[in-house]
Amino acid sequence: MLFDFEILHEVTQSEARLSRFTTPHGPVDMPAFMPVGTQGTVKGVDVGRLRETGAQMILANTYHLTLRPGEQTVAALGGLHAFTGWDGPILTDSGGFQIFSLAERAVVDEEGVRFRSHIDGAPVELTPERAVAIQEHLASDVAMVLDHVVALPSDRATVEDAMLRSVRWAERCREAATRPDQVLFAIVQGGLDPELRATSAEQLVAMDFAGYAIGGLSVGEEPVEMYAALDCTVPLLPADRPRYLMGVGRPIDLLEAVARGVDLFDCVIPTRNGRNAVAFTDAGPIRLRNQAHALQREPIEANCPCLACRHSRGYLRHLFQANEMLGPMLLSIHNLTFYQRLLAESRQAIAEDRFAAYCVERRQRWSVEAPAEG
Amino acid sequence: MLFDFEILHEVTQSEARLSRFTTPHGPVDMPAFMPVGTQGTVKGVDVGRLRETGAQMILANTYHLTLRPGEQTVAALGGLHAFTGWDGPILTDSGGFQIFSLAERAVVDEEGVRFRSHIDGAPVELTPERAVAIQEHLASDVAMVLDHVVALPSDRATVEDAMLRSVRWAERCREAATRPDQVLFAIVQGGLDPELRATSAEQLVAMDFAGYAIGGLSVGEEPVEMYAALDCTVPLLPADRPRYLMGVGRPIDLLEAVARGVDLFDCVIPTRNGRNAVAFTDAGPIRLRNQAHALQREPIEANCPCLACRHSRGYLRHLFQANEMLGPMLLSIHNLTFYQRLLAESRQAIAEDRFAAYCVERRQRWSVEAPAEG
Repeated sequence: MLFDFEILHEVTQSEARLSRFTTPHGPVDMPAFMPVGTQGTVKGVDVGRLRETGAQMILANTYHLTLRPGEQTVAALGGLHAFTGWDGPILTDSGGFQIFSLAERAVVDEEGVRFRSHIDGAPVELTPERAVAIQEHLASDVAMVLDHVVALPSDRATVEDAMLRSVRWAERCREAATRPDQVLFAIVQGGLDPELRATSAEQLVAMDFAGYAIGGLSVGEEPVEMYAALDCTVPLLPADRPRYLMGVGRPIDLLEAVARGVDLFDCVIPTRNGRNAVAFTDAGPIRLRNQAHALQREPIEANCPCLACRHSRGYLRHLFQANEMLGPMLLSIHNLTFYQRLLAESRQAIAEDRFAAYCVERRQRWSVEAPAEG
Repeated sequence: MLFDFEILHEVTQSEARLSRFTTPHGPVDMPAFMPVGTQGTVKGVDVGRLRETGAQMILANTYHLTLRPGEQTVAALGGLHAFTGWDGPILTDSGGFQIFSLAERAVVDEEGVRFRSHIDGAPVELTPERAVAIQEHLASDVAMVLDHVVALPSDRATVEDAMLRSVRWAERCREAATRPDQVLFAIVQGGLDPELRATSAEQLVAMDFAGYAIGGLSVGEEPVEMYAALDCTVPLLPADRPRYLMGVGRPIDLLEAVARGVDLFDCVIPTRNGRNAVAFTDAGPIRLRNQAHALQREPIEANCPCLACRHSRGYLRHLFQANEMLGPMLLSIHNLTFYQRLLAESRQAIAEDRFAAYCVERRQRWSVEAPAEG
């Protein structure tokens, strides 16, 4: 059995669940957070240091890799695992989100999407079949269906049209998939409309995918709108498959989503914020460039085991002031470690049936109010 | 005994010697190469990874650190060892070389040198006493005297004037030094003139410094001119003190200098070349951006134990093409490892009395001719 998904514990007060997802490259303890390795590397973090943060599974971007170096090159170099040196599970997205956020002049029709590379303007066409073929060349453990992502807010007809096309594309992806050592996850679309989300979920569930993602969120909507979209989507997904909230998010968003039954996340926030000298702490984020840190001998967090926290805040500030690479490197490691610790603590809290209390305690520390009941 | 210098073996066919330099932060097996941590970090390499390259001692730049963050800040954060997290020996230069290469409008008189910061144009004055005070605040294990460096070629009067001033400044540095846990190395100047080098060496040796550097080389002269300067300088230095050739150099330069009795080196070449995608190999340097490497599955060097060499050349090339930080990070590690292996092999060859044969074999592999006898 190359893939398996096992629920280990469900809490009584929410939808949160502890699970283990098994892949050909090892297990993932869920709920889990995937660092983003856009171009075949998590920016500024070598795979050994990445493993030390506690990460078990990473994400790589099909859009970026097909443009450079090209999936044929990755395949010739042994596939993503050999290419990157990451021997754990890897998920590739389908490129849908990047096409609609990065590519130039994207044109969608039923066949697929044509666009121009943001690197050199070269014309590229991506179809559902091609998205699967690329990911099979990349040889990730989990591939994602090609979806049609629209910005929010959009009018209902636009959202519905894209959602229905995404469903048809998902079916074509499923038909195109051939690798026995790779599974395909579907992506529920439908914007913030409960009916459209329900239609998407029902039709995709009927196709029996190995996992289900919630896509099209974190694209400009309010957090409470995102939570509401989860409230109406997650209950329609099969309990015995992993659920993946794409591109989300802030630490509080992860806890809110876990409480609603989500198992898997990815987001650039920890690494992007780290490169910009913002460090997560139990007491909220701090800006290391701030003059206040210049003479501080204490680390970012006294109880953090990461490499950055072996240094003083004063040293880390100096690295950013002096434009030294080591600043972004160390803060990326710290923030990834922060996210992995948050997920590890969440798993522990779920196992001990105190996840609701854990969320309350976290909201208090971060001074975040609980979202109003929907 | 905080400091000690012990000759372990001298070869019969050259001046090469195996030695051990003991400092309050541990031993340095010599001949040794110090990676350059200009601003309190070796660019792109965390201290754990730096240790893995085999480095025992590193260099930090007084000029850069006094300008930013300032030696008072480094002292408040516990000194250079606590600041950087490097718990091994640290040598600080005096700032002389950087003032004459980086600073704006440097003006020298007998008292010292006035210049403007290359960062913000602020006026700064450095005297021999101040150079020592800064380095005592930085709390390095080895401090360097302030010297007056001139570009080559310069007329004899200019070189002689700067050399004699450097001798007087060295005496003032010696008088100013107070830390029992820091030793001061003198710097022999005199350009390419054997008489001036001899005068500098004799006067500095009479002052009884803990170690002697050969400065003012690798500033535009030909390699054979540098070797000739070593030929006439090193024999005048006391055999029972470490000899340090500042800012040199290419791998072949290190071997030529070791053969002439030099014990210690620093140079930015391995890290700077690494950041520019040039990797050292036993068969000479290779340019990773070259299209020829795009599909190569082999590492830079099959027998290299470094982190970069766990990856294919194709992956490393991709990292540089995609402007990913990990490219400069990994190639810096590889090149530093290359230098440390070169020095470790040199020590082994000296210990086994076959250093001359080792140099011959290296010159053949690198296709470098032996310098003509002077």
